[in-house]
Amino acid sequence: MAEAVRRLEGDYVLTMDDEARLLPSAAVDIGSDGRIAAVGAIADLGPAPSDVDRVGGLLMPGLVNAHAHTPMTLVRSVGDGLPLADWLRDGVWPREGRMTAEDAWWGMVGGSVEMLESGVTTSCEMYLFEDQVADAVERTGGRAVVTPGVISALSPDGRVDGRLAEIVAFHRARHDPEGRITVGFAPHSVYDLTPEQCGEIAAEAASVDALFHIHLEETRAERELVIERYGRPATQLLAEVGAFAGKAMAAHGVWLDADDRRILAEAGVAVAHCPLSNLKLGSGIAPVREMLADGIVVGVGTDGPASNDNLDLWEELKMAPLLARGRSLDPRAMTARTALTLATSASAMAIGLSDVGHLSVGAHADLIRVDLDQPAFEPGEDLLTHLVFAGSSRYVTDVWVAGKRVVRGGRVQTVDRDKVLAEMAARGRRLGAGV
Amino acid sequence: MAEAVRRLEGDYVLTMDDEARLLPSAAVDIGSDGRIAAVGAIADLGPAPSDVDRVGGLLMPGLVNAHAHTPMTLVRSVGDGLPLADWLRDGVWPREGRMTAEDAWWGMVGGSVEMLESGVTTSCEMYLFEDQVADAVERTGGRAVVTPGVISALSPDGRVDGRLAEIVAFHRARHDPEGRITVGFAPHSVYDLTPEQCGEIAAEAASVDALFHIHLEETRAERELVIERYGRPATQLLAEVGAFAGKAMAAHGVWLDADDRRILAEAGVAVAHCPLSNLKLGSGIAPVREMLADGIVVGVGTDGPASNDNLDLWEELKMAPLLARGRSLDPRAMTARTALTLATSASAMAIGLSDVGHLSVGAHADLIRVDLDQPAFEPGEDLLTHLVFAGSSRYVTDVWVAGKRVVRGGRVQTVDRDKVLAEMAARGRRLGAGV
Repeated sequence: MAEAVRRLEGDYVLTMDDEARLLPSAAVDIGSDGRIAAVGAIADLGPAPSDVDRVGGLLMPGLVNAHAHTPMTLVRSVGDGLPLADWLRDGVWPREGRMTAEDAWWGMVGGSVEMLESGVTTSCEMYLFEDQVADAVERTGGRAVVTPGVISALSPDGRVDGRLAEIVAFHRARHDPEGRITVGFAPHSVYDLTPEQCGEIAAEAASVDALFHIHLEETRAERELVIERYGRPATQLLAEVGAFAGKAMAAHGVWLDADDRRILAEAGVAVAHCPLSNLKLGSGIAPVREMLADGIVVGVGTDGPASNDNLDLWEELKMAPLLARGRSLDPRAMTARTALTLATSASAMAIGLSDVGHLSVGAHADLIRVDLDQPAFEPGEDLLTHLVFAGSSRYVTDVWVAGKRVVRGGRVQTVDRDKVLAEMAARGRRLGAGV
Repeated sequence: MAEAVRRLEGDYVLTMDDEARLLPSAAVDIGSDGRIAAVGAIADLGPAPSDVDRVGGLLMPGLVNAHAHTPMTLVRSVGDGLPLADWLRDGVWPREGRMTAEDAWWGMVGGSVEMLESGVTTSCEMYLFEDQVADAVERTGGRAVVTPGVISALSPDGRVDGRLAEIVAFHRARHDPEGRITVGFAPHSVYDLTPEQCGEIAAEAASVDALFHIHLEETRAERELVIERYGRPATQLLAEVGAFAGKAMAAHGVWLDADDRRILAEAGVAVAHCPLSNLKLGSGIAPVREMLADGIVVGVGTDGPASNDNLDLWEELKMAPLLARGRSLDPRAMTARTALTLATSASAMAIGLSDVGHLSVGAHADLIRVDLDQPAFEPGEDLLTHLVFAGSSRYVTDVWVAGKRVVRGGRVQTVDRDKVLAEMAARGRRLGAGV
């Protein structure tokens, strides 16, 4: 255990560990290795390190965004209101087709700033341009699981081994559980690739104990297409090809039925619930209450900013329980505590990280400060309920990743913010010109 | 027309008048009467008054909260996750039963601060303690339609004429279309009162051209209860007793069927859609797309902060189109522009105010500044879509009501904010003690 070099003292610390303790007058000690050296009530902690920062407010784990395509910040707001296929064909793809590696870097930096400033310290990224995605996250000071995508458009000959070799090399070069980047593998879907290709990619991922990350059951049309093509739903096809043998997470899961959920639960496959994206694109409302009852680990994700249209996970934190209640007409469908778990420790578990999403000794010191001096947090009889249902990213003032303060007073400290905004504007304009 | 005394210059002005124009490099001139003296592109406006404030960002109308019970800030977060009846019986009512007039004043002040700081300049309030509600709004600098409630618990003898006389007197004393308080009449519902009582109250409201404001079709259980008791649904009963003869707005409307909607549309009755409250209490998702198609004027409301749990109408602004899309599995169900209309000019129309919710010459100078220097507003190809789907209350920096700046840099300027928070905390604790 590294020595504590700094203590952050809050009015409250919410641990989100297995006991999800809310500790008044508590502190987090940060070690020289960027991990948590101690956490608890100030009265119970040992002698303070020389550097004590009395930040006040509520200290809690940074939120974890389990499913994102963050460079798509550059195509945000285009083609709103179009049906999914038209939105992709007329709005998104023509712009993405022009995207350079440098564009992707700036799009990722801009989205990373947006996430950090709203209290999201880790995201699981599914995109191309994986080097730029990883570089941008290193640059802004966040943390990510980078899962390079495999899509059929990149393998017109029907072979994925070339792209797979790139991802294996990327994993070898960049996967660093002690650092801020880990690497997984992300076949787009069973309907874009084939089940066999998905199985091949999963085997490669499992051989290096990396996350297998795939879209699953996002739309009813996609479900029907797969059943028509293969005679059975995607979840069953993936299980048959051994895709769930290692660490696996499926994004969306809107149209999972009871058989699908049983397969995922038995195989230990997590689901990234993306409630706002699923509504915006008219995909539906995922059966999250049922997934949780079946024992599936459920995290929450924003999905790409082009289908949300932001990267503010506080909205998912609030909407996951609200939609579970509205869908079932039962206010008992999900508690505030469960919602907080979804957006922190469960999302972390879903994306294969055991050392983030909770404030525990030995975990990465990824945490945020929430300003409680707000009408929305009064009278405060049940602070967890306030956080979920009355809280919002607007109350996040400070953010630390690996013990380093990357946001102060709501503003990112690691990059030139004005320059980032100007690059996003100029590059977005160029991608959309004449489309 | 009063003389312009101040010009506010923005990078953009979004008028939300009938043409919903988004004007770059534009300004709003404010007259000595607190109304808008001119609005348009700076190049097209006449000579500037001596006081020119170059605030930048986006200037748009303050949002209008069409249905709220704001003093319930003091019972926020209690009993979350309980079914509606248990939540009221075990959580809300024991606390509200202890509420003094002074408590209601502080609860209303706290909620009013929360609304103003999030860019909501007008709310339609349904509660008791109407004098305190109106006084608190006058004090914080906001604007409200105060609609004193009529509930059966206050008239154990089955007569409402005593309470009705109080409201008539309150209307005479406080209704002031030139000021910041107007007054309406608010029978709780057909299932709490009787249809005849609702008709009696509506006749009194219509006689002074005041808003008739009632809960309607919030839960399935309530619908079934009314049909069991009277043989037909509440909307039909209200129409039969003439309750829709004057200006009328129904809150919720989750379980309105096609016949109900036809009655409302023909009678010109508006609906206050409260999507977050309806989800949180497990009531369901209102058929808003259908209401709009039927020609009903639809506004949005937060409902009481105890069932939301905040007063941040930006969440309703975003969720109204998202739920319309998710419910219908069609991303064309509601555009961003329609959503903006719902939260501004349509909400204003629903609560009987023609002079707020849009920036037009002669309208009240109730407007807000949105900081556009944010990743969420890049690349900004379609700013209206960004506002609805990527925007949030966190980007509201300044708020003017009747031409007076009441929020500056995100902080209310009209009351001692620390004192307000301390009073909310202490009073909330006292109401909950031993419950």
